[in-house]
Amino acid sequence: MTPQPRIPPEVRCAADYEMLAHARLAGPVFEYLAGGAGEDLTAAANRAAFRGLTILPRLLRDVSRGHTRLRLMGHELEHPLLLAPVAFQTLAHPAGELDTARAAAATDTCLVCSTLSSFALEEVARHAGPHRWFQLYFQPRRDATLDLVHRAEAAGYGALVLTLDASIQMPSLRALRAGFRMPDDLRPANLAGYPGPAPHALPAGASRVFQGAMHGAPTWADLEWLASHTRLPLVAKGVLRSDDACDLQGRGVAALVVSNHGGRTIDGVPASLAVLPAIRAAVGPGFPLLFDGGIRSGSDAFKALALGADAVMVGRLQIHALAVAGALGVAHMLRMLREELEVCMAATGCPTLAELGPGLLHRPQEPHPC
Amino acid sequence: MTPQPRIPPEVRCAADYEMLAHARLAGPVFEYLAGGAGEDLTAAANRAAFRGLTILPRLLRDVSRGHTRLRLMGHELEHPLLLAPVAFQTLAHPAGELDTARAAAATDTCLVCSTLSSFALEEVARHAGPHRWFQLYFQPRRDATLDLVHRAEAAGYGALVLTLDASIQMPSLRALRAGFRMPDDLRPANLAGYPGPAPHALPAGASRVFQGAMHGAPTWADLEWLASHTRLPLVAKGVLRSDDACDLQGRGVAALVVSNHGGRTIDGVPASLAVLPAIRAAVGPGFPLLFDGGIRSGSDAFKALALGADAVMVGRLQIHALAVAGALGVAHMLRMLREELEVCMAATGCPTLAELGPGLLHRPQEPHPC
Amino acid sequence: MTPQPRIPPEVRCAADYEMLAHARLAGPVFEYLAGGAGEDLTAAANRAAFRGLTILPRLLRDVSRGHTRLRLMGHELEHPLLLAPVAFQTLAHPAGELDTARAAAATDTCLVCSTLSSFALEEVARHAGPHRWFQLYFQPRRDATLDLVHRAEAAGYGALVLTLDASIQMPSLRALRAGFRMPDDLRPANLAGYPGPAPHALPAGASRVFQGAMHGAPTWADLEWLASHTRLPLVAKGVLRSDDACDLQGRGVAALVVSNHGGRTIDGVPASLAVLPAIRAAVGPGFPLLFDGGIRSGSDAFKALALGADAVMVGRLQIHALAVAGALGVAHMLRMLREELEVCMAATGCPTLAELGPGLLHRPQEPHPC
Amino acid sequence: MTPQPRIPPEVRCAADYEMLAHARLAGPVFEYLAGGAGEDLTAAANRAAFRGLTILPRLLRDVSRGHTRLRLMGHELEHPLLLAPVAFQTLAHPAGELDTARAAAATDTCLVCSTLSSFALEEVARHAGPHRWFQLYFQPRRDATLDLVHRAEAAGYGALVLTLDASIQMPSLRALRAGFRMPDDLRPANLAGYPGPAPHALPAGASRVFQGAMHGAPTWADLEWLASHTRLPLVAKGVLRSDDACDLQGRGVAALVVSNHGGRTIDGVPASLAVLPAIRAAVGPGFPLLFDGGIRSGSDAFKALALGADAVMVGRLQIHALAVAGALGVAHMLRMLREELEVCMAATGCPTLAELGPGLLHRPQEPHPC
Repeated sequence: MTPQPRIPPEVRCAADYEMLAHARLAGPVFEYLAGGAGEDLTAAANRAAFRGLTILPRLLRDVSRGHTRLRLMGHELEHPLLLAPVAFQTLAHPAGELDTARAAAATDTCLVCSTLSSFALEEVARHAGPHRWFQLYFQPRRDATLDLVHRAEAAGYGALVLTLDASIQMPSLRALRAGFRMPDDLRPANLAGYPGPAPHALPAGASRVFQGAMHGAPTWADLEWLASHTRLPLVAKGVLRSDDACDLQGRGVAALVVSNHGGRTIDGVPASLAVLPAIRAAVGPGFPLLFDGGIRSGSDAFKALALGADAVMVGRLQIHALAVAGALGVAHMLRMLREELEVCMAATGCPTLAELGPGLLHRPQEPHPC
Repeated sequence: MTPQPRIPPEVRCAADYEMLAHARLAGPVFEYLAGGAGEDLTAAANRAAFRGLTILPRLLRDVSRGHTRLRLMGHELEHPLLLAPVAFQTLAHPAGELDTARAAAATDTCLVCSTLSSFALEEVARHAGPHRWFQLYFQPRRDATLDLVHRAEAAGYGALVLTLDASIQMPSLRALRAGFRMPDDLRPANLAGYPGPAPHALPAGASRVFQGAMHGAPTWADLEWLASHTRLPLVAKGVLRSDDACDLQGRGVAALVVSNHGGRTIDGVPASLAVLPAIRAAVGPGFPLLFDGGIRSGSDAFKALALGADAVMVGRLQIHALAVAGALGVAHMLRMLREELEVCMAATGCPTLAELGPGLLHRPQEPHPC
Repeated sequence: MTPQPRIPPEVRCAADYEMLAHARLAGPVFEYLAGGAGEDLTAAANRAAFRGLTILPRLLRDVSRGHTRLRLMGHELEHPLLLAPVAFQTLAHPAGELDTARAAAATDTCLVCSTLSSFALEEVARHAGPHRWFQLYFQPRRDATLDLVHRAEAAGYGALVLTLDASIQMPSLRALRAGFRMPDDLRPANLAGYPGPAPHALPAGASRVFQGAMHGAPTWADLEWLASHTRLPLVAKGVLRSDDACDLQGRGVAALVVSNHGGRTIDGVPASLAVLPAIRAAVGPGFPLLFDGGIRSGSDAFKALALGADAVMVGRLQIHALAVAGALGVAHMLRMLREELEVCMAATGCPTLAELGPGLLHRPQEPHPC
Repeated sequence: MTPQPRIPPEVRCAADYEMLAHARLAGPVFEYLAGGAGEDLTAAANRAAFRGLTILPRLLRDVSRGHTRLRLMGHELEHPLLLAPVAFQTLAHPAGELDTARAAAATDTCLVCSTLSSFALEEVARHAGPHRWFQLYFQPRRDATLDLVHRAEAAGYGALVLTLDASIQMPSLRALRAGFRMPDDLRPANLAGYPGPAPHALPAGASRVFQGAMHGAPTWADLEWLASHTRLPLVAKGVLRSDDACDLQGRGVAALVVSNHGGRTIDGVPASLAVLPAIRAAVGPGFPLLFDGGIRSGSDAFKALALGADAVMVGRLQIHALAVAGALGVAHMLRMLREELEVCMAATGCPTLAELGPGLLHRPQEPHPC
């Protein structure tokens, strides 16, 4: 894995970074990063859902004063593309999250730093721009969780992104078959000072799932406890159901992320895009709603925004661009994505994001009146 | 065919046993066991139907006291996975049904022993756990049928599973093309003492189907006769229609198995999963309903249970795991399946099977409101 | 092309004759016989339509007195499988229509002899059984048409099958690319005595289609003229629309054949099966309706019959079986087809054809109530 | 690239020209001409949409006086096939647009000359027949636009085709990956005398899309200005939405072209055919409506006409036939297309284009009443 200080000429579109990352990373590492849970059914569904929607251009509209700015949870963002929280980025590049943060700063991008980052959240914050959020995993002990929260507050993170869908995961068959195992020296820098989980012996007849992995998984009570212990707004990530969306909204979270964790938790859940419209309908038009899952191009971003997302996160594109060309790659990928989003806005005659809506999309399989 | 006393490391998921069984069994035998009737259209449809459904996780629910227990026809089962009746298991492994029975006992699994087992039902019973049912094929002579029933009662089988869809079958083209023929020394141990069918010369112009194979096929009258001659509950297997389901329910059978015989009888019948919801709707919520057809993973089991089945049967997974690693393989496969089912329950926030329902599933092809 | 006096052991199902005919016939001849118009879109659609329907078995019904007999336009037929009119059968086998006729006689099958047969209709009639119809193409001169009709009446043909969809055809790209051309010595025996079409010079600016090929194509007036000049019942073949079906019914034809000419006329017309139910609905329950298009198995026949056909025709199966094993092959193919039809009837609990209906079928893509 | 003075015998249908052009053109040039924007999703959708519709023949109708003539915007055309405006045709053949124009003249075809033609519009006009239109791109300066308009009027072009969907385009990944770049010596002959666009430095923070490419893109105001400065009827090309269609109709354009620019602008817009019926419904039955996008055969043309187009344009077929056999190739392609259209009309019993309508088509995926 030799990081490249330049953009390879083979990169014609953002998705090309995946192919190049394949060539550059060790096989098992690539399979782990690119693969989804199980047989990749959900990861593939994420991609396919975008192909099932087409964009309907509008003609002759003046977009010469167009822009992609938006206000999101108190941030004035230049564009609606966020860097999703991706764990252990040194797997892809030695500079890991530091390079990602530099790219975010260079491109006015909001960064979401993972609890499981390879570098400490304070160090990541020093390289990031002003727009940065911290992704929080509940820790086995509440004092550790609280310490993480306080550190994120102190380091200037503007929101806590609670990943709620990863209490249990199915392994990636691609990664297993490629022989991937997490390197022994890969440790979550943020958790270095905390005690590990208390030993939890399973009684005879107990389930490794219910009484094992799910022992101590966060519940609604934990969410309420956390809300009362931080001044940061909470963003709930991993929502795929309208009822959960409404319940979270009712408990005071500030925003939701429609996400299936990039297809990395339970294989066989729906494409994020497939459930987005129903969730937007459920939370109403004004509530901050983000999207994550399968975005590989600016037109993918356009479609998610048109279906009701206020902003979108990119995960695999981020890690693949990082693997190929470090901070420069991530910045280049973000610029390509943003310009392609702008092209879609221009083609549909939308000078601002506020004009995007489902009327700009068309489903090919819908019957037409013949 | 050398039985292996260990779990091969290549087994990453239950379905991997099929691939390994392919390598381990003689080609024609593998084709016979894995193939379906005709061109495998129904066998393939069984698999495809599961892919057409996705699972909708629910967040933040406490499942730490979760379990998979259920009460089914008087049995207190640890989990809803049953071993389907598979004939002539020595084709796959010398220990055949005895090893399958040992695996059932070791994993608290309800075993269904076939009329066409390679070992006598009494011997199988000695190795099985307390939960065991006997699958009954009507014999050409009623006294033989009755003797089988009495033997099953005496050997402690708790129910009679009547396979109703196998009076006539289309051959498997895969098996024919591979040159499979049933070995001459493979005899149904249970039938050793009974006279064969009376010679039945077809008159000129008679049909080998109607007046041949279907001569003496069981009818409603036979079902009533049987019900009046046993104290065991009857489970009707092979149901694909709501009207048949209601008729069977009306005649007093204790449970139904929605099944297409793993695609091994008539090629071109629907996937079992495709008809399951209508049959559950027809028999009402409380009636014991089992499912069989295409299950290769715990998430498949989850989907069938969510669509209304109380329990599911596994056939090909059983025979493939048996071929690869004998009793140990079958037990390992059942454990993988059960844990994956638990993972799906945990991800959907269901501590018990009673919480499963169709609201946890989503059909990708359903239109969404854009 | 060496005719084989035996059934090759590789024939496991009727459709296997196609594969073997491929090996046995000269490449261009095979492509011509197997190919459809244009790119084979319609020929492929014919096949795909059957796969889109599944069969719903019914349990425990007594079919031990079952049969496949039917009464069709005055014939008491043993089964509902007819041999479609296929032209120039010596392309496939030196004995051509004579062997086909022998097979028909041996299997109680109704034969439809083509106007373009390689042998004279009188000679074909001598080898056929009692059930035989004559397929009539309108000739350029009415006296020739009338002479054909009188000869068919004299030779004991029981109906005239008017092929209405072949006035113009698109060539088969497969056949063209394989270099097929009709052999010079291949002449329609029935037309030997008639004058050819009058030379018909196209004026400048005229269309080779409208003023060329369609000059003299049959119209409603020709149909009425013919009806008034024969005592034979007329069967209109090539119907794909409900309105045409009703018009033909109104003009007194005795029966219809839903057919797209095996996909050999206009590439891109619907599968015959796709339009069958609407046509049955249009003509009402009692009107004789035949089906042709894509049948390769007894379950295909079952599906067409369940959707409203009284009987079905087989074309390519006929010619492929003829190519492989002459009269014996055609008879064997018919027997396989009939027995598979009987298996489907037995599995659905139908002792007679009268019990077949759409309730025995299921469309997998139909939504189910989850 | 050696132009061929004959029709290659491998050409069995119009679409065969693509395959032969592939062999004849330099790889990057072929990819540029054949490719669409991005990943060719829209280009592929254009083709697939035709396969989703089938043609329903009608029987026994007299078409012996049939023809394909139509009156379109004052032209009496022999047939409804137009040559779409394709830029820089010397990329495909040294004689470029001159040969295309000769083919148009020889086949009574209406030619649409591109603003970006390799030869001057006056020279193209001299080789074309009486039916010729000029495709207009708005120029950076209005005086240049106006000069083009006056030249087109003077050269006898009968309409101005305004391409409205090309203000911004996504590059073709196929072309980029093949290394295509526009040859330096390839200049739009029509624009030789005009000044280039004024240098337009982007301010810091400005978008290369909104403030760059879309700076000066035509708007509704430009359309109104143009309408008031020419006596030629305006044809708006690139319409994919009903609302745009109605707005354009309301502003006085004389005709519309439903088109997605052959999938060459924004990848991921719908197939032209998918939106055609809604647009016909929106503009009403009498309004001139043309179609462009994916036509490769006369049956494709038939389908577009049946769904409401008055005439259709062919682009890639034109350029591929030109590459293979110059003027002769284009003329031959047009003749094949026209005759295949006539075959479809004959098969559906339509002597004139006025009889075409959606009732002649059928969607296979529509449920049928079983």
